[in-house]
Amino acid sequence: MRKNYLLTPGPTPLPPEVSQVMGRPIIHHRTPQFQKILKEASEGLKYVFQTQNDVFIFASSGTGAMEAAVVNLCSPNDKVITVEAGKFGERWTEICSSYRIDTEVINVEWGKAVNPENIRQKLKTDSKIKAVFTTLCETSTGVVNDIEAIGKIVKETDAVLVVDAISGLGAIDLKTDAWNCDVVVSGSQKGLMLPPGLGFISVSKKAWNLIKIANCPRYYFDLIKAKEALDKVDTPFTPAISLIVALNESIKMIREEGLENIFRRHRIMAEATRKAIKAMGLELFTSPECASDVVTAVKVPQGIDGEKLVKTMRDTYGVTIAGGQSELKGKIFRIAHMGYIEEFDIIVCISCLEKVLYDMGYKFELGTGTKTLEEVFLENKIL
Amino acid sequence: MRKNYLLTPGPTPLPPEVSQVMGRPIIHHRTPQFQKILKEASEGLKYVFQTQNDVFIFASSGTGAMEAAVVNLCSPNDKVITVEAGKFGERWTEICSSYRIDTEVINVEWGKAVNPENIRQKLKTDSKIKAVFTTLCETSTGVVNDIEAIGKIVKETDAVLVVDAISGLGAIDLKTDAWNCDVVVSGSQKGLMLPPGLGFISVSKKAWNLIKIANCPRYYFDLIKAKEALDKVDTPFTPAISLIVALNESIKMIREEGLENIFRRHRIMAEATRKAIKAMGLELFTSPECASDVVTAVKVPQGIDGEKLVKTMRDTYGVTIAGGQSELKGKIFRIAHMGYIEEFDIIVCISCLEKVLYDMGYKFELGTGTKTLEEVFLENKIL
Repeated sequence: MRKNYLLTPGPTPLPPEVSQVMGRPIIHHRTPQFQKILKEASEGLKYVFQTQNDVFIFASSGTGAMEAAVVNLCSPNDKVITVEAGKFGERWTEICSSYRIDTEVINVEWGKAVNPENIRQKLKTDSKIKAVFTTLCETSTGVVNDIEAIGKIVKETDAVLVVDAISGLGAIDLKTDAWNCDVVVSGSQKGLMLPPGLGFISVSKKAWNLIKIANCPRYYFDLIKAKEALDKVDTPFTPAISLIVALNESIKMIREEGLENIFRRHRIMAEATRKAIKAMGLELFTSPECASDVVTAVKVPQGIDGEKLVKTMRDTYGVTIAGGQSELKGKIFRIAHMGYIEEFDIIVCISCLEKVLYDMGYKFELGTGTKTLEEVFLENKIL
Repeated sequence: MRKNYLLTPGPTPLPPEVSQVMGRPIIHHRTPQFQKILKEASEGLKYVFQTQNDVFIFASSGTGAMEAAVVNLCSPNDKVITVEAGKFGERWTEICSSYRIDTEVINVEWGKAVNPENIRQKLKTDSKIKAVFTTLCETSTGVVNDIEAIGKIVKETDAVLVVDAISGLGAIDLKTDAWNCDVVVSGSQKGLMLPPGLGFISVSKKAWNLIKIANCPRYYFDLIKAKEALDKVDTPFTPAISLIVALNESIKMIREEGLENIFRRHRIMAEATRKAIKAMGLELFTSPECASDVVTAVKVPQGIDGEKLVKTMRDTYGVTIAGGQSELKGKIFRIAHMGYIEEFDIIVCISCLEKVLYDMGYKFELGTGTKTLEEVFLENKIL
């Protein structure tokens, strides 16, 4: 017998309440029953997004929703800013380039957040910049960007602020309206505790003005068609029905716990994880001032094979964490504490990490990690 | 207590075996466990598609896979043929137009199949035509097109044949390779007996030659990225994991029954439905020579409110069939006999139709429909 524990930055574990409804008989999408479900989902997403704007649901992964943002807001040869502080920031640039949109890239050292002032400076160089593409939580590096500060800057210009909140939404604070985020995209398999397969996108009034004139070609991800359909409580194409049914279940759980409590839970889990890592003599990869509450990136200690560490935890013990991506492959490992995760999941994960590191010859006092977690969790009650 | 019966042309009912695995704990997609599942799914799809070509899986509805076909094969201003024999044929034209591709439309009267000779003629007018976009089963009209004949014609030219087999694949015969179909697209919620949320696309060698030079902008649906990933048993973006796990379950069921038996079951159910409809004095909408085996379209008899008929069957009796779409709204109703449907589902559906029509004042001998079904099912044993 071996139990499996999933502590990856997407997919995140499914609550049994969500798993169960996935097995319900399918219903047809052009029926009053489904309209009721879709309406509930749309309203629920507004709560999670902290917005009064419409939130649209695509049958796609989060990247599909990112592409929707680009093709609906821009025209070829438009100039935009993309913030690259990791793999997912780079994705904005890649999508824009695919559509021949001119990107002004702000490069940020991996492991650090973007300095909002750099965005202000870049915006000043060209008043024709249409959009600023950013990332809430750069899961490749564990960084959270200061979207609130960026929002204040972009608000003063004609550009719209687009936030990839695929990682983070529903787990850490993102006030779409209050922070002036014009377009926020997300996905189902992170803070929303669902299987992957749904992409979300919220659209402000300022963004709609751009959408009306944008002429990137688009069909499946066309927001104008999506809006016409949503106004009739419909979707332009067959929606991913079972995932939307499950979405309502997860939103119900989110409402019950309350966003503020959820954010607090993630804050405490992140703090505990970081402290435990440091107590074990390990080094955090992410700069402390911008370490996200959804994933903790840790440097692989000298003499340890990082890929083997992740593999052993997963294949021998059933505890799945993530390795490094792109240039960080083998150099870091990442522990996600996002979604349907509470303190005992972190205990299991750090306990397993201790065991495997110990076996691999890393020198530290066994039990330090879990003890540190217990201390933090005693001081900051979640349960 | 009321049971629900779904006889719509997508979504189709889920087998309990499939529903059950939807509730399994989620696993991470970049693991050997998921690679095994993805490999099994890819091989299984080749069986269902009857192809040796790669079949790619998108997290999208079928329309997403249609868009993938267009943007990967074509460049703006390319000339292509689209066959419009109903709503889904029109969709090809719409997608092409969105990407500024020049469409030569072959208009077919709704309820009839395209004459393959018209495609031959149109192809002769311009040797630069890049692709012919067709529909296997036009669910809006109940028509099945003669893809085999079209394949023989297109094969002799430089154009590729693209088949929308969203409705029909895994239920009626489509020999991708033997019939020279270069690109076949499908979706999960029809013959494959899954919830909606997966789009499939198979690609022939001839099609790859076009893909290499096509320059429609694309990112999420880019097949070159998908191919690079698939060669490493991976996907470019987070896949719809739970649906792919369920896909393997449904393919297992399809393999167990065997494609030929499945096609026969659908043939018998369609024949029985058509005979029952005629026995009740109702008129079939679709020309008999091209009536599909997956959905039967019936003219709403004079004096009967077609929308009310569908609504009453669904809301009072729990039997969901489909009304007419676009110009056929209120004029026809459609009974799907596709996927996880067997003879007693048809019995229930026709019994309900009889009851509701009787109540609405339609004159016919009560019981004729179900009796006719029994006769056909006695003569042609499925169970």
